Amino acid sequence: MPTIEKESLIGKRVPKMDAPEKAAGRTRYVHDMNLPGQLIGKILRTDRIHAKILSMDTSAAEALPGVKAVITAKDMPAKMLGLNNDNPPLKGDKVRAERDEIAAVAAITEEIALEALKLIKVEYEDLPTLFDPRESEKEGAPHIQESKDSNVCMEFEYEHGDAAKAETEADFVIEDTFKLHYVTHACMGVSGVIADFDNITGNLTLHSNTQVPFLHKREFSEVLEMDPSRIRIIQPPIGGGFGSKLDIYPFEPIAVILAKKSRCPVKIVFTREEEFMASPTRQPAYINLRSGVKKDGTITSRVFDSLLDNGAYTSWGATIPFVMMQTASSFYRVTDCQYATKAVYTNNPTAGSFRGYGNLQATFAIEQHMDKMAEAVGMDPLEFRLKNAQEAGEVTGQGMHFKTCGFKECLSTAGEKSDFSRKFAENNANRGNGNPVKKGIGMASMLHVGGGAKIYPSDGCGTILKMDDFGHVTILTGASEIGQGSETVLSQLVCEELGVPLSAVTVVNNDTDITPWDVGVHASRTTFIGGNAAIGAAKLAKAKVLESASQVSNIPADQLDMRGGCIVRADDGEVIMQLGKLLRGMHFKDKAELVTTSFYYEPPSVHQDKGFKGDVSAAYAWATHVVEVEVDTETGIVTLDKVTAAHDVGRVLNEMSLEGQIEGGIIMGQGYALTEDLLVKEGRVITPNFRDYKMVTAPEIPEIDLSFIETQDGEGPQGAKGVGEAPSICMAAAVGNAIYNATGVRIYEAPYTPEKVYRALKGAVEAPSMAAE
Amino acid sequence: MPTIEKESLIGKRVPKMDAPEKAAGRTRYVHDMNLPGQLIGKILRTDRIHAKILSMDTSAAEALPGVKAVITAKDMPAKMLGLNNDNPPLKGDKVRAERDEIAAVAAITEEIALEALKLIKVEYEDLPTLFDPRESEKEGAPHIQESKDSNVCMEFEYEHGDAAKAETEADFVIEDTFKLHYVTHACMGVSGVIADFDNITGNLTLHSNTQVPFLHKREFSEVLEMDPSRIRIIQPPIGGGFGSKLDIYPFEPIAVILAKKSRCPVKIVFTREEEFMASPTRQPAYINLRSGVKKDGTITSRVFDSLLDNGAYTSWGATIPFVMMQTASSFYRVTDCQYATKAVYTNNPTAGSFRGYGNLQATFAIEQHMDKMAEAVGMDPLEFRLKNAQEAGEVTGQGMHFKTCGFKECLSTAGEKSDFSRKFAENNANRGNGNPVKKGIGMASMLHVGGGAKIYPSDGCGTILKMDDFGHVTILTGASEIGQGSETVLSQLVCEELGVPLSAVTVVNNDTDITPWDVGVHASRTTFIGGNAAIGAAKLAKAKVLESASQVSNIPADQLDMRGGCIVRADDGEVIMQLGKLLRGMHFKDKAELVTTSFYYEPPSVHQDKGFKGDVSAAYAWATHVVEVEVDTETGIVTLDKVTAAHDVGRVLNEMSLEGQIEGGIIMGQGYALTEDLLVKEGRVITPNFRDYKMVTAPEIPEIDLSFIETQDGEGPQGAKGVGEAPSICMAAAVGNAIYNATGVRIYEAPYTPEKVYRALKGAVEAPSMAAE
Repeated sequence: MPTIEKESLIGKRVPKMDAPEKAAGRTRYVHDMNLPGQLIGKILRTDRIHAKILSMDTSAAEALPGVKAVITAKDMPAKMLGLNNDNPPLKGDKVRAERDEIAAVAAITEEIALEALKLIKVEYEDLPTLFDPRESEKEGAPHIQESKDSNVCMEFEYEHGDAAKAETEADFVIEDTFKLHYVTHACMGVSGVIADFDNITGNLTLHSNTQVPFLHKREFSEVLEMDPSRIRIIQPPIGGGFGSKLDIYPFEPIAVILAKKSRCPVKIVFTREEEFMASPTRQPAYINLRSGVKKDGTITSRVFDSLLDNGAYTSWGATIPFVMMQTASSFYRVTDCQYATKAVYTNNPTAGSFRGYGNLQATFAIEQHMDKMAEAVGMDPLEFRLKNAQEAGEVTGQGMHFKTCGFKECLSTAGEKSDFSRKFAENNANRGNGNPVKKGIGMASMLHVGGGAKIYPSDGCGTILKMDDFGHVTILTGASEIGQGSETVLSQLVCEELGVPLSAVTVVNNDTDITPWDVGVHASRTTFIGGNAAIGAAKLAKAKVLESASQVSNIPADQLDMRGGCIVRADDGEVIMQLGKLLRGMHFKDKAELVTTSFYYEPPSVHQDKGFKGDVSAAYAWATHVVEVEVDTETGIVTLDKVTAAHDVGRVLNEMSLEGQIEGGIIMGQGYALTEDLLVKEGRVITPNFRDYKMVTAPEIPEIDLSFIETQDGEGPQGAKGVGEAPSICMAAAVGNAIYNATGVRIYEAPYTPEKVYRALKGAVEAPSMAAE
Repeated sequence: MPTIEKESLIGKRVPKMDAPEKAAGRTRYVHDMNLPGQLIGKILRTDRIHAKILSMDTSAAEALPGVKAVITAKDMPAKMLGLNNDNPPLKGDKVRAERDEIAAVAAITEEIALEALKLIKVEYEDLPTLFDPRESEKEGAPHIQESKDSNVCMEFEYEHGDAAKAETEADFVIEDTFKLHYVTHACMGVSGVIADFDNITGNLTLHSNTQVPFLHKREFSEVLEMDPSRIRIIQPPIGGGFGSKLDIYPFEPIAVILAKKSRCPVKIVFTREEEFMASPTRQPAYINLRSGVKKDGTITSRVFDSLLDNGAYTSWGATIPFVMMQTASSFYRVTDCQYATKAVYTNNPTAGSFRGYGNLQATFAIEQHMDKMAEAVGMDPLEFRLKNAQEAGEVTGQGMHFKTCGFKECLSTAGEKSDFSRKFAENNANRGNGNPVKKGIGMASMLHVGGGAKIYPSDGCGTILKMDDFGHVTILTGASEIGQGSETVLSQLVCEELGVPLSAVTVVNNDTDITPWDVGVHASRTTFIGGNAAIGAAKLAKAKVLESASQVSNIPADQLDMRGGCIVRADDGEVIMQLGKLLRGMHFKDKAELVTTSFYYEPPSVHQDKGFKGDVSAAYAWATHVVEVEVDTETGIVTLDKVTAAHDVGRVLNEMSLEGQIEGGIIMGQGYALTEDLLVKEGRVITPNFRDYKMVTAPEIPEIDLSFIETQDGEGPQGAKGVGEAPSICMAAAVGNAIYNATGVRIYEAPYTPEKVYRALKGAVEAPSMAAE
């Protein structure tokens, strides 16, 4: 009999299953979809920044032939959007920001819809504006959300140990204030939705790019005052998410109400300008940081304060301090930590969630601050970090338990491979030479959740697995594919259990009526949580298959294995029978049975307690990036030459997609550090296009030297951790440190555009301050 | 605490769940679907009937701008279609029938595709034709399928008892020959498919109206020489099936090969003329029947012989004798039965399967023959049938076991409610009066499978059931909804188990990658088999829910029940908690779990043995129809005034949909009896449109008096049996008997068109003969 060796796809370079169709242009995004009878919806946004709406006249728009529905605030359910219930999908009484939606039209063509928008007449009375969060928080500032007591939309404080006391034990106390800017996701696929409301049954189908279909099912039911059972969310392939599709934004209920009123499916797709102007941003922030350090390099205390510009409405952006806090409290050994944060309303754009979720901002501050502390005590930045870095087994003051921790290995690997300490010293020494182009090397590390984050009552994922008569496997998973490659990695994990080739697996993951629940794509959780759910279902299937094979072959099930689409003897791989044949045998016998299993995986993480303490993730990811730059002191141009990165990924599941995800994240971080700047002047986005909003493009991508640290997480699927957000997080801090290494000038404000760097080198950039002038 | 009484939807009048969207024109049939980049496929059919293809030139078609692919036989895989592997999807060497496909084109518009067809040049050499099956079977007739030994494509014989001997014991021997005509399904939704072939991955998605998606997955893999795992069949809502979509017909592989060659999705939708000309028909047949009967009315013997016109290729039509045989052998107590059948090739249209599957033809013969026997022994037709009717407990000579049997109750109910015997005698007496319009009453009954039919290795159905956090239930069932109302009845059965309202159920039933296996829609099996599968999954879910409720409430699970979306005490209905709340509690606890179950139901039926004996269905359905007609002897017009029908349905699950299905079937049977006639002259369909092919329309629908006989089948879901085919089956026979009752003239050939009846009344219609003149 032939034999089959055990083959594994784990750790291999496996192309993403959806790559060929994406490369061939066959992928059908929501933009490509058109339902029969579909209308095009367009949104009228205000031309004011902060104003009372005195009157609105839609009669001319309604009379335009081809217009099937015109809606204003009075057509909408009373329920508001957002974490603070402060965002009416259509604004009826006043507008508070440039992006504010005041009316919408559904028409048989886009041209007619746009023409109709022009026919809507609005009268306003302007109100005083607030564009600086430091002004907003002042006593006596006009209230942007008039029903609230103040402009503060979120604030809290946290403490472990006694930072004030610990600070007194320090030899040096370093204090810095940093300022972070607006960037936006700039997804290649702009926001889009098709709402298909059945007026007869009351059923709503949303073809939506959401990252959290199951949460949206519930939330839409609240916003639309509907039975959640009647809402079905179907996710077409998504042209980029990165956190921008984690919340319900006004265009979505607008599409539903247009569909309801017109009795036709309504599609709303943003223009690129709308996407820049009206989709969420990363939260801009002021961060003040004060740390005590002893001469020997021991950190004694940390006090962290932040002020966030929330914009006029509250989305997830206001909650990023919960993630920032982890970096403040637990990234390094900080026995005494005090943390405070506040988010305030302004008339600026609303911030949402964005890959890294506050950790780019926190790490920008902390990792530059660490370099300053190292300098203060006269240590090399790498040596200083190694001294204070966390290790496996640590339970931090905030309750995070690092069961595995590759932080020191990340530091030393990236440090050694980049020859960091030698170059750092050399650049330092070369600062004063006459060469106008200075070389700099900078390092930054990061801590991020790598095994989900228990925020919602469940952080789990369900999987149903079915095998057909030919050994083909369908995985019905709650986990969404949003381009991160989950489909491929879940398939690999199932192949590993069931010994079938990748081509034998289909993943179904895009329909709330079909797939079991999952909390959604965020917190770098899909591989970890969805992967463990898939493994669970596959193990049950394997047990059923081997039990049946055992009956047929009279070999005990524990001596059998599944390999190469066959049942084999576990010890020598001798083929007992072909899997499809066994499955047909199970199906086509008197007591017929199919192999259909289901599994729900809930990670062993816990919710934070009232004091914000608790082990919220099942695993934690670590990374160190060393960046090498050239700073042209005559132009301010910073060129990123090389990134040497080391990531604790638990275990490599798919080397190719891991590289892709980390390289993509590095480049996104590079954009945040150097080029991307959503400029907002007096509440208006003045860079709403790819000419003025500068993304990193291929020629600017640096050399990347990537190392994977495999700590074999005990809870992770095949030992892996989540890494989706990690690679973006420490880029800006590392670049800031490298610029300092090159020039001796510390710039406390991102991005490091030529203008800013040039001005800073000339001493013309003031250090940010938490208080307004 | 509030209490909830047990409420049941079983037996209620529940509107079909898909009715509103169908009524509102919102249903999206394959005709309404358009995939991005889709091309339109058109088929070139021969203009000959039987001819050699000498040459074909497609160069001009290929050169036409907008044409993306032109294919001929040489582009097709070698595998042929049909039960006898005798039907090449594109014919390359010769054509054998009007509908023969010789080339196909995919183009960017329908107009261009049609223009391209005109540019294809073909040269033929005509061959001798055969249009009469009685000529075809003759020795020396030219072979239509030249690779076969003869024109016989199927024949077999069966016997139980000793009919020859039993015939000698009869007091009377009656022998008749009947002839049945062509009819076609005339579905409102013409045949259509969209083939979406991914040339990169090799995956094929077919948006197909098939009734048997899982069988087609396997069969397409054979026809297309593909891995079955790579074929996904998605069923859009179907505009009528009735058996016409049970086989793969040439247009389907043609669409796939066009898609493969053009690298675009290709849609082929028939014109109405194509549908009449090239879709399957009901099998035309000659039936010879000889029965012995004693003076006391006991049937002693039956000899049944049939000759079927197969057309040029073999589809399911050739297998209808297996069903006809059941009616011959087991419908009445026939201790000695001899059965022979033969299907032969002709140059006529190919016959497929059609609601009733041969039983309309068999019953047409047998039930008129029964009236003749009754007349011979001087008995009333009802009395004669009651004497010979089967009863519960009977195991027939062919091995069918009638565990429940409402036959006699059907007979007596329909007989009494119609006042049959009195009217029958009265009409008899009035035959001779001078009134040119004669009243007639006729009766016919039928036996049909009502619990599936074990033909394929499994006759089962799989179901996966999932409950969401709000008590909403999704049933992923293999059972297809093709308009028969399965979605609604499966939902009712699940509601019965889980105590939730119908609005809390979604049925997903249209995608082979998602749903578990089912053998497909045929043999009146969906309610029975799919229903039992759904009940099985629901019972498992209920056990899981009540177990959890028991833990929460400390009440033993067997004292709890599910009602009105709540968990209640079984005895007094006291509400313990809301179902959604319990489910959320199960989901959002440390050991989180979802309620997801699966069940595969395989009926206890068996395959026929080599002697064609065996209990092939889990239950059997019975019905009696009494029809009342007026025959205008001056015009030959037969008006159907009233149908009094009684059906053994096991148990009424949904009174409204049951009425709908039975009334629809009666009207379909009325068409077969009176108006529908697909006229085929020299191999050409000469009635390919709704003007010439006369369907029954609303004004001609008779009064219908419907009774349900509830025999509470032990195996059936809630006691129900399948009834999908039953109501069409006995209409033509009953009308034939009624015409005889009115006029004293027996017409052995359907349909009873005015011309035929008029000519018969004038003695100008010869009785059919099994042998050609």
